Amino acid sequence: MTETPHPLYARHADTLARALKAIAERDFWSAYPESPSPRVYGEHAAAEGRAAYEAYLGTDFPLDQPGTGEPVATEASPFGVPLGVRYPRADPDRLIAAATAALPAWRDAGPATRAGVCLEILARLHAHIFELANAVQFTTGQAFVMAFQAGGAHALDRALEAVAYAYAEQTRHPGTAAWEKPAGRGEPLRMVKTFHVVPRGVALVVGCTTFPTWNSYPGLFASLATGNPVVVKPHPRAVLPLAISVRYARQVLAEAGFEADLIQLAAEAPGEALASSLATRPEVRIVDFTGSTEYGDWLEANARQATVYTEKAGVNTVIVDGTDDFAGMCRNIGFSLTLYSGQMCTTPQNVLVPADGIETDQGHKSFAEVAGGIAAAVGRLTADPARGVELTGAIVNDGVLERLARAAGEGEVVLASRAVTHPEYADALVRTPLIVKLDADAAQTYGREWFGPISFVIATGSTARSLEIFRATVGERGALTASVYATDPQVLAAVEEAALAVGVHLSCNLTGGVFVNQSAAFSDFHASGANPAANAALTDGAYVANRFRIVQSRRHAPATA
Amino acid sequence: MTETPHPLYARHADTLARALKAIAERDFWSAYPESPSPRVYGEHAAAEGRAAYEAYLGTDFPLDQPGTGEPVATEASPFGVPLGVRYPRADPDRLIAAATAALPAWRDAGPATRAGVCLEILARLHAHIFELANAVQFTTGQAFVMAFQAGGAHALDRALEAVAYAYAEQTRHPGTAAWEKPAGRGEPLRMVKTFHVVPRGVALVVGCTTFPTWNSYPGLFASLATGNPVVVKPHPRAVLPLAISVRYARQVLAEAGFEADLIQLAAEAPGEALASSLATRPEVRIVDFTGSTEYGDWLEANARQATVYTEKAGVNTVIVDGTDDFAGMCRNIGFSLTLYSGQMCTTPQNVLVPADGIETDQGHKSFAEVAGGIAAAVGRLTADPARGVELTGAIVNDGVLERLARAAGEGEVVLASRAVTHPEYADALVRTPLIVKLDADAAQTYGREWFGPISFVIATGSTARSLEIFRATVGERGALTASVYATDPQVLAAVEEAALAVGVHLSCNLTGGVFVNQSAAFSDFHASGANPAANAALTDGAYVANRFRIVQSRRHAPATA
Repeated sequence: MTETPHPLYARHADTLARALKAIAERDFWSAYPESPSPRVYGEHAAAEGRAAYEAYLGTDFPLDQPGTGEPVATEASPFGVPLGVRYPRADPDRLIAAATAALPAWRDAGPATRAGVCLEILARLHAHIFELANAVQFTTGQAFVMAFQAGGAHALDRALEAVAYAYAEQTRHPGTAAWEKPAGRGEPLRMVKTFHVVPRGVALVVGCTTFPTWNSYPGLFASLATGNPVVVKPHPRAVLPLAISVRYARQVLAEAGFEADLIQLAAEAPGEALASSLATRPEVRIVDFTGSTEYGDWLEANARQATVYTEKAGVNTVIVDGTDDFAGMCRNIGFSLTLYSGQMCTTPQNVLVPADGIETDQGHKSFAEVAGGIAAAVGRLTADPARGVELTGAIVNDGVLERLARAAGEGEVVLASRAVTHPEYADALVRTPLIVKLDADAAQTYGREWFGPISFVIATGSTARSLEIFRATVGERGALTASVYATDPQVLAAVEEAALAVGVHLSCNLTGGVFVNQSAAFSDFHASGANPAANAALTDGAYVANRFRIVQSRRHAPATA
Repeated sequence: MTETPHPLYARHADTLARALKAIAERDFWSAYPESPSPRVYGEHAAAEGRAAYEAYLGTDFPLDQPGTGEPVATEASPFGVPLGVRYPRADPDRLIAAATAALPAWRDAGPATRAGVCLEILARLHAHIFELANAVQFTTGQAFVMAFQAGGAHALDRALEAVAYAYAEQTRHPGTAAWEKPAGRGEPLRMVKTFHVVPRGVALVVGCTTFPTWNSYPGLFASLATGNPVVVKPHPRAVLPLAISVRYARQVLAEAGFEADLIQLAAEAPGEALASSLATRPEVRIVDFTGSTEYGDWLEANARQATVYTEKAGVNTVIVDGTDDFAGMCRNIGFSLTLYSGQMCTTPQNVLVPADGIETDQGHKSFAEVAGGIAAAVGRLTADPARGVELTGAIVNDGVLERLARAAGEGEVVLASRAVTHPEYADALVRTPLIVKLDADAAQTYGREWFGPISFVIATGSTARSLEIFRATVGERGALTASVYATDPQVLAAVEEAALAVGVHLSCNLTGGVFVNQSAAFSDFHASGANPAANAALTDGAYVANRFRIVQSRRHAPATA
């Protein structure tokens, strides 16, 4: 069953080798340029991608997979533009049957062929990156550049990273081994052993509405690269980016001589709860999910036949103790709060500041001056609507609006949220970030996630108290990110110790062009799996190792001549 | 927090390097000689080990860890000899508190120091291997040589294998990385990143009564090597081997400057259900268990805050289609059934044979001749009580006796079980293996595990039917081992395909000195994690990768001059 790798392996061997080097060194590398500039992608790429995206609107999405025959159209753009793409409503039995049938040949193809095919899929998706970016933009509400980067180039980088880990993990053992055990004066015992990589079964990926590609690709490609057929269940409001991904993946699989049904889209009608019925099928052995803590917990408790990877809500925290670049700190935090209207799972929510202020390069700054400095930075970024919307994008759903209104009543408003008219899309739902001041004893408010452009600047008795709050909230509710501003090495060390104790990644003194809510593929780990916000990291050895098993066979070696 | 490794790392670096090579190549290697011969271990080792073991009997076990002050003595030897060792009854709160307090310094010590300390513990245990072997023999009922090998040398090999995987996995990423992202014409973005290995929390190891060391060491050392303090909860009937292990491990830890409480024994009074109360503590984040399917399933369902590794019951199967060495086949299967009275988790239970017989080097053999050949082989091995007991050892508990009696009524007895008087231990519970003939439709009998010296030779319509039964029983109940006898390559391929489908390791045509119930550390995987008999393999990447997390911190690189 060990076969010669498919020619696609050779085609992408250099890229794979470079990715393997990157995951071992974790320094800077990227395979897919993040700049949408015509200098990088060519003069016509943007227009062609936009046109390809627009051709999907109001039509039946071209997907050659078995459905019920009944079309579903569930998307509504945060930019207020009509989408109306119709997808074939999935039939769970047919999805599972087709996936199961496709498994053995994909299993027997081996890790190298699978890596080659996966990299060809990524190359195909990269060739359609503008089409993908438009689909991400108009389903999620992200501004275009962010949709291109996070939803396109960075998502592809994370996918490649997952394929590299999967390949490394599957090939850490040889395919065969000759075993020869000395037997005193007699002939040695000789065995030939074959180690088969065996996938777990059908893999389910449950997408989210804000980052349909970035959050789905790692699990999708980790499962596919380790031999598992994948069923992709998109969020009903963000189907198109994953439908496009599945479409091109199926093309590549078929061209390479495999069953296209190794990847299938599971589009559903409203209220169908398709994720729940798929996730609990006995054939489904892997589930990847990004979304609410409530539903993530449900999956962990109920999809017990599967290995379940969840990324859920958290309470991301900034600890402010002091800085030697007050302006840079305010600018950096302000940018993090503004980007995609705080709708990133990595956006800071709680900014812990001593009530009696901090020391800075501009002298002592009171609590009010720190909160005001951050608010002013946000204000500058959003003052001009045309420039502001390129950062904020649009609000993803009405739940965020409702939460924004509620949050403003929780404390003293430092910066009010404003409705903004998008210069290009009149019906787009645009709001600037809200910043609310809270006292340290308002844990019932800041102790849970307020998803959206909502941050709390919290007055604490001291940085020691800030650390207590940090340990308590992140320990209980989890976090994907934490950051600290301090000049005292002892404070930095104490925060790092606390970050290890609660298991959250820490960024220290970010004042320039790196932001706490951005993680770089091949270098930064996203989530840790060490606190309640996620039960795994994207991507590391643990993320791929349980997606397959080794099954061995052994027999006596043929007698030597 | 990246420190210079402890000198114990340098002391054992060569052994670790050799073990790392072995797990990557999976050919033959062993660090601990399996022969108890005086030529290997010296003239006095056996007597000294025996004396050390005997010194424990009827006394308070020397363990310097906090208990309740109340001694417990729960062991009863299958050899009928008095043991009477008293252990400090554990107080769960104190165990957890001591383990939690010991964690940070062990975490900060880093992978290299932890590997060095673990290897020193293994060296210390190896220096006491005869003491361990006696403790294993008299608590489990294993014959001495087996107790020495499986309970001593092989257990140490498996422990070393786990440490090697743990070290490899923790060091696949660097401790720090310099990240430099080009920024067009501007200065590159430069970050320094630190990647901390962070343990999951307190690890619980729940030992079994038949292989207290072999089955416990992999999880124990995988957890310890990845930074988790370990609480060892032995089976109440097989405490001594793990008490000795914990005793010497604590000595080494203390000598190396760490908290001895990084490993603690959790001895309990009868009926205390200490494993359940410990396994569900929020601080316990890893559980390793070997034992019944019932309790393994309970742990998986209830210890939800932890990553739970279980090895449970299964229905190990032999498929007989033909052989070119009939005598060798019967001898090999007969030996496997006899060894430790079938009380290995890897002992075959179901032997599937076509009702109309098989072709062999001795011509056609009828079903009755195949069953009779295996029975005769068992008979020869057990005919002489003095030699037989060195293979069978003793029966581990009364449940096995009860099951033996019941199994004899399930079908036609091919070989009756006999009571044997142990020449040395008059009160030892010794029984020879029982072989019962069943029809293929008796799945209600052979479709579940009958732990003990109980095997079924099952008459099937054909090998194709044997394969159906194999797929059904192993698919539903799991198995740790499978084997096949066939000369037709197509049959071998069909069985291998079925073994992949149900996820069980396969041995083909074993007729010599390798037995299906033996797996060699560093080469054979034990269990696969791909069927209901176990949810993980001992030992591979997946077995260690979830025992720690990476938590990173990042900051701007200092400005370049």
